[in-house]
Amino acid sequence: MLNRVRSAVAHLVSSGGAPPSRPKSPDLPNATSAPPVAPPQAPRSPPARAGSGGAAPARTVEARASFSRPTFLQLSPGGLRRADDHAGRAVQSPPDTGRRLPWSTGYAEVINAGKSRHNEDQACCEVVYVEGRRSVSGAPREPSRGQGLCFYYWGLFDGHAGGGAAEMASRLLHRHIREQLKDLVEILQDPLPPPLCLPSTPGAPGSSDSSQLVGPQSCWSSQKEVTHESLVVGAIENAFQLMDEQMARERRGHQVEGGCCALVVVYLLGKVYVANAGDSRAIIVRNGEIIPMSREFTPETERQRLQLLGFLKPELLGGEFTHLEFPRRVQPKELGQRMLYRDQNMTGWAYKKIELEDLRFPLVCGEGKKARVMATIGVTRGLGDHNLRVCSSTLPIKPFLSCFPEVRVYDLTQYEHCPDDVLVLGTDGLWDVTSDCEVHSSGPSSGPGGPGHTPGPWLASPQQQAGFRG
Amino acid sequence: MLNRVRSAVAHLVSSGGAPPSRPKSPDLPNATSAPPVAPPQAPRSPPARAGSGGAAPARTVEARASFSRPTFLQLSPGGLRRADDHAGRAVQSPPDTGRRLPWSTGYAEVINAGKSRHNEDQACCEVVYVEGRRSVSGAPREPSRGQGLCFYYWGLFDGHAGGGAAEMASRLLHRHIREQLKDLVEILQDPLPPPLCLPSTPGAPGSSDSSQLVGPQSCWSSQKEVTHESLVVGAIENAFQLMDEQMARERRGHQVEGGCCALVVVYLLGKVYVANAGDSRAIIVRNGEIIPMSREFTPETERQRLQLLGFLKPELLGGEFTHLEFPRRVQPKELGQRMLYRDQNMTGWAYKKIELEDLRFPLVCGEGKKARVMATIGVTRGLGDHNLRVCSSTLPIKPFLSCFPEVRVYDLTQYEHCPDDVLVLGTDGLWDVTSDCEVHSSGPSSGPGGPGHTPGPWLASPQQQAGFRG
Repeated sequence: MLNRVRSAVAHLVSSGGAPPSRPKSPDLPNATSAPPVAPPQAPRSPPARAGSGGAAPARTVEARASFSRPTFLQLSPGGLRRADDHAGRAVQSPPDTGRRLPWSTGYAEVINAGKSRHNEDQACCEVVYVEGRRSVSGAPREPSRGQGLCFYYWGLFDGHAGGGAAEMASRLLHRHIREQLKDLVEILQDPLPPPLCLPSTPGAPGSSDSSQLVGPQSCWSSQKEVTHESLVVGAIENAFQLMDEQMARERRGHQVEGGCCALVVVYLLGKVYVANAGDSRAIIVRNGEIIPMSREFTPETERQRLQLLGFLKPELLGGEFTHLEFPRRVQPKELGQRMLYRDQNMTGWAYKKIELEDLRFPLVCGEGKKARVMATIGVTRGLGDHNLRVCSSTLPIKPFLSCFPEVRVYDLTQYEHCPDDVLVLGTDGLWDVTSDCEVHSSGPSSGPGGPGHTPGPWLASPQQQAGFRG
Repeated sequence: MLNRVRSAVAHLVSSGGAPPSRPKSPDLPNATSAPPVAPPQAPRSPPARAGSGGAAPARTVEARASFSRPTFLQLSPGGLRRADDHAGRAVQSPPDTGRRLPWSTGYAEVINAGKSRHNEDQACCEVVYVEGRRSVSGAPREPSRGQGLCFYYWGLFDGHAGGGAAEMASRLLHRHIREQLKDLVEILQDPLPPPLCLPSTPGAPGSSDSSQLVGPQSCWSSQKEVTHESLVVGAIENAFQLMDEQMARERRGHQVEGGCCALVVVYLLGKVYVANAGDSRAIIVRNGEIIPMSREFTPETERQRLQLLGFLKPELLGGEFTHLEFPRRVQPKELGQRMLYRDQNMTGWAYKKIELEDLRFPLVCGEGKKARVMATIGVTRGLGDHNLRVCSSTLPIKPFLSCFPEVRVYDLTQYEHCPDDVLVLGTDGLWDVTSDCEVHSSGPSSGPGGPGHTPGPWLASPQQQAGFRG
């Protein structure tokens, strides 16, 4: 099965002719620069281009629709049935029609082995136009000036406990990013450093001058330089948070069930921003070298963050859990004996005398794929999960989950790329059974080369590990 | 001045003949294996070898004495006066007598440029014998068996706001480490994995068997493997905490004023453990390659940890500080405008509307050497500082400081070393004016080579950056 997915993806990436040369004017709107029209379209229709979502924040979401797959797959009702067939387990990739995804994007997915009724993953590939909200200088914008910005966007959403969160994220997260970037349209195109302070209303003078500052301490009189890049990172971080808050607000009315890991890529003004919240993974293959563009957030990798939170806010443990970690569950008969443990400050282990409260359930337990927070969830970052509770309890798990991504930046202008170079995004199902090197060696190997090539994205969304074993 | 220190250190490291070959039996006690005698000696005497400190935990500390320098400098009263002379600023290194420090350890220090009355830094170099506390198996120990363990120890303590904490740490931290290792003497010498559980009393059966575990969740029925190495790491981590707690207990009676960064190295059973709490730095130079063995903990590198704590425990901010970071101090006239900020979750920056509480002092401010927590302290990990308060306030700063080190492990048995290889420990004063590469290139270059050599340590403790500028 793995080979089937590999072949499908390799075919997609390599068969479409030349890999795209770097967009000459990434800040120029393309087809998505159509003037704003009103609210987002129904989910079964092709997704509204983000640029057509209008200037209003993405604060509403249409009524929950039936199960769907990424729109770029262009599945007919029959195709959707086949994609959803656990027995057949067809590999899905976009049709080989004239209409290709940007940057020769490849995609492959397969239904899971039966752990959930539907494939709960989603994916998204968009070109998004950002119209400036207003002139930050307060002056009326000149119509002749290039006002907008355009970004390329790819998203992979690994859903769990329902497909609602992944579906909502695939439709709306890029709009939240667009909203966050609206304030920055002029700033990002201005070679000067970003102003530290903006006027509250257009026309009012901004204050980016610190000469009037008098502080008793030298640390207060200094002024940090903030880069354009860090503004984009901040915009993406806040977009994730706003997406998560929207899911919390609308979960009841719209059945936003479950949660999802989110791995998204934004290409803007020459730089690739890879934002990861969850256990998906992104790599760039450049001239045969593998550059990790994300790290996984799991109960193991985030143990100390989780334990610290449980330690500082013991009420979140509800008297049912202990923030301490033991190498296995403590048994009542071991009271008074000394067992290995580690707390939020430790990376090593030491012995401690077992007391009554050490018999509580461990906040973090298990190893590898079996590691869990509160014996329930195996990822510690993502979107949604607002209704997630500990089994047989009302204790919410969400406080321990973070919706914030780690964002890594890759400056495309700093490197030479060859036609085989590729950016690969995969959910854990891919990486559980395939190493970075294997993914690389099974990638495309044809297509014209030469300077100016950029790594074409390659998305794989096998929902479950078993999905690749056949 | 820098060259004077460099020369002194290079001389020390290179002049003593052959670099030490790896100790053949690092677990055999050497001269320090003398039978325990009673409490620690007075601080102006040569420090009691740790092995002679007796089996009692290091829970008491002798009365505060007058200012001193590391005992291995063997300073006469006249030498001590010269070492403490801000005008002369003599470089101090151990006398070139027949009695050399273990592993051809080199050392150099210079008094600061006048920021404090005395040099508040301290250093320590010891060979410590650990006698097992008891047989963990419960069986009486066979007298013929090698019962003890020996570790080599180097410590560098960068004091601030008084020399008491650094002095106390230099005399006692290795004893705390020894105490923590006492339970592990047999376990570390046993090739079997460490038992997960120890009996509460010798003779009682231990429980390291999980076959009786029945859990509803698979994560609860698993059992983690704990390595010997992670036990040593845990022992060092807990020793730092116990040292800090001892300082808190005894600060009133013994004038343990100030705080200190602590950078210590433990060599035990073939591995080098480098534990760092503060902004000192350790590197290993191996065949010309530089291997970083620590990272610095400052308000900048620990910004998110500090902000998270302020966010989760706002009472620690006393209504005086905000956990948000702004690129500079917010001014009252900017109320209602939008300024760049970042919170505990963000690495990027975004704009927010300035509200009244944003006018509070920032928890973290400044950049580089000027970065401060609560406008007061420029390091975020270390020992002591229990009395440290915000200037003109009763607000304690200690809750934001961590006494826990990050421990990195270097397996000496995995690498070949040449005679120029060296482990360098330096306080920030060294690294502020000297890059890793410069330190390397000014190191020793003579002495017989050959396999089996180990990196000899090299300690430099210039108290202040200015101390190197002359």
